[in-house]
Amino acid sequence: MKIDKTQNVPAGPVKEKEAVGVKMRVLMSEKDGAPNFIMRIFEIEPGGNTLYHTHPWEHEVYVLERRGSVRQKGKDHPIEQGTFALVAPDEEHQFVNAGDGPLKFICCIPIVRPKE
Amino acid sequence: MKIDKTQNVPAGPVKEKEAVGVKMRVLMSEKDGAPNFIMRIFEIEPGGNTLYHTHPWEHEVYVLERRGSVRQKGKDHPIEQGTFALVAPDEEHQFVNAGDGPLKFICCIPIVRPKE
Repeated sequence: MKIDKTQNVPAGPVKEKEAVGVKMRVLMSEKDGAPNFIMRIFEIEPGGNTLYHTHPWEHEVYVLERRGSVRQKGKDHPIEQGTFALVAPDEEHQFVNAGDGPLKFICCIPIVRPKE
Repeated sequence: MKIDKTQNVPAGPVKEKEAVGVKMRVLMSEKDGAPNFIMRIFEIEPGGNTLYHTHPWEHEVYVLERRGSVRQKGKDHPIEQGTFALVAPDEEHQFVNAGDGPLKFICCIPIVRPKE
């Protein structure tokens, strides 16, 4: 069993082009012996956003703190603490923080991912 | 994309023998089109606990609210808001709430699970 506190995991910047003010912690992955999926925590600064993109694997998201939106085809779907979202494979998506504090959410992805 | 609030998902009792005061919400599963893994939220009442058991698939856990412990081979590993835990396949485990409020945590499992 691996058990730890989130604050003990370093948060690294997400360096994708067009990602603004985004940090990520990888809590559990294949490096820890996870067999099937990876749990990450994203933190987006006020005014920040992830890349608007698509990929052939899913996201399973749970919002831990604050508010924001999932942008898809020009529409903003509001999210807040306690909102969950399944972004299916190949769906366009972008996470946006239009609020006044850091937006934090869990985002799980599979370890074995189809090639883009 | 499926997007909703946790409180809109009904919480059902976990009826396993020896599970005490445990409710579960299934946020995202194969019924919603999830391809690989299931995200659930457990809520354990003060004094309650899940079954002490083992199974040939993993748990990936993130604690949302309050305190408790993961019991394994007679040892209590404390957990609180922000703690995460990877329970590997075939590891014995039990979640216990010895606190004074409901212990809430996310617990993800794979959709395709080896037979017990």
